[in-house]
Amino acid sequence: MSVVDYAQMAFREGTRALAVEAPVNLVYGSVPHAVMMTTPGDLEDFAYGFSLTEGIVEDASEIRDVQVEEVEDGLRLLVELAPGRLREHLARKRAISGRTGCGVCGIEDLDSLPRAETRQSLSLRVPVASIAKALGALDSAQTLGATTRAVHAAAWALLDGTLLAVREDVGRHNALDKLIGAMMRAGTDPAEGFLVITSRCSFEMVEKTARLGAGMVVAISAPTSLALERANDHGITLCAIARSDSLTVFTGGERLVR
Amino acid sequence: MSVVDYAQMAFREGTRALAVEAPVNLVYGSVPHAVMMTTPGDLEDFAYGFSLTEGIVEDASEIRDVQVEEVEDGLRLLVELAPGRLREHLARKRAISGRTGCGVCGIEDLDSLPRAETRQSLSLRVPVASIAKALGALDSAQTLGATTRAVHAAAWALLDGTLLAVREDVGRHNALDKLIGAMMRAGTDPAEGFLVITSRCSFEMVEKTARLGAGMVVAISAPTSLALERANDHGITLCAIARSDSLTVFTGGERLVR
Repeated sequence: MSVVDYAQMAFREGTRALAVEAPVNLVYGSVPHAVMMTTPGDLEDFAYGFSLTEGIVEDASEIRDVQVEEVEDGLRLLVELAPGRLREHLARKRAISGRTGCGVCGIEDLDSLPRAETRQSLSLRVPVASIAKALGALDSAQTLGATTRAVHAAAWALLDGTLLAVREDVGRHNALDKLIGAMMRAGTDPAEGFLVITSRCSFEMVEKTARLGAGMVVAISAPTSLALERANDHGITLCAIARSDSLTVFTGGERLVR
Repeated sequence: MSVVDYAQMAFREGTRALAVEAPVNLVYGSVPHAVMMTTPGDLEDFAYGFSLTEGIVEDASEIRDVQVEEVEDGLRLLVELAPGRLREHLARKRAISGRTGCGVCGIEDLDSLPRAETRQSLSLRVPVASIAKALGALDSAQTLGATTRAVHAAAWALLDGTLLAVREDVGRHNALDKLIGAMMRAGTDPAEGFLVITSRCSFEMVEKTARLGAGMVVAISAPTSLALERANDHGITLCAIARSDSLTVFTGGERLVR
């Protein structure tokens, strides 16, 4: 799109790529569940990841099909669940109407704050050099981020630092949900690597890490107090303020090896 | 808190300040409305701003009292509305159960995407030099951001670039809601200045700007496509990717003067 750039005391016509955010309505078995503002790419991955991290499914096998449908004012993501799962989901939805979206906003009282079961690998060991390698690789893998400067990325790195998958989105929760969905669909083992996120690490990011079953998350920006608390609870290693040559270990440092 | 820093191939004990995020339950007339993950400061401001931008009140006079209450697992923000307003709010809440939180996450279908009425000043004119001045001042005004590197800031700048108020929060929506609340309580005229936000500019930020009645928002990071669309709809000037010596005007450039 065309814009006006102001620099060196002068206005100049120019162009900018914009990160697209579109309302995406997640529909389970014909019942609308939530509208998420999402970058419309990798939406099948998003459907899988969102369904797992929101506790709607336990694994990929419970999702039978995902269809993306264009409607007048956005997109619909039609998720077909295994029949038993759909019944459970609809029953739960009736019981806790309001529990939707990013996992927090729809909650009406404090007791409903989500908490995943702990199931991540305790034997995980990650060389510090692998983190540096993954961070370096992520820098050039953010294709959308490079042009729009308005998206977050989430990546899965193998123990040697190789990036296996990268997903981007205007929302950091969505980027991680897309990545988790891609891993579910590919059958990636969450015990054999670590997460890298370009955003801040709030408690929801740690909860999603726990839900995936991963043992370590590396954030480029800083964590919040509740993120650290939850990482401690789940036994997840939390590294943040990560640069190619430095990082801060907030908890779980025993998994890092030099 | 104590952490382990890794730099120059060595681990070292250190300390870091963490941005606190606490679940804050907004309660209107004894009925829990939504839980927001919030940095627990300026919560009275937050109550005012959230109530306005969520369309629960039209102005500060409809809020009679705000009390902050500590409970076991977080905070409760008890908002006393004018009686008519409370009745309306509760009736609407019953009608659209799920419409909560950040303004999107709780929405179950696309028709419910929020849209503020347009009421910002058309005669607003802002010197480019004032934007540079405001950005420079904001840099040193982010007290929490300086120590935690995990919070967003929103500020109100007068036409000469002087910062009148700055609010910070782990959430960018919350930071803007806190600022808007502070302006409501102080009776700040939204026609006599502009907003500066340190975060990305998504469509919700533009909607909050419209709800406040301001004519211009300057974002340090980039806008999304829908943010631009809404800025066009509302006639709001949207500048972004703002640095002390450069910025990009995405729409409404006629309000900028050299």
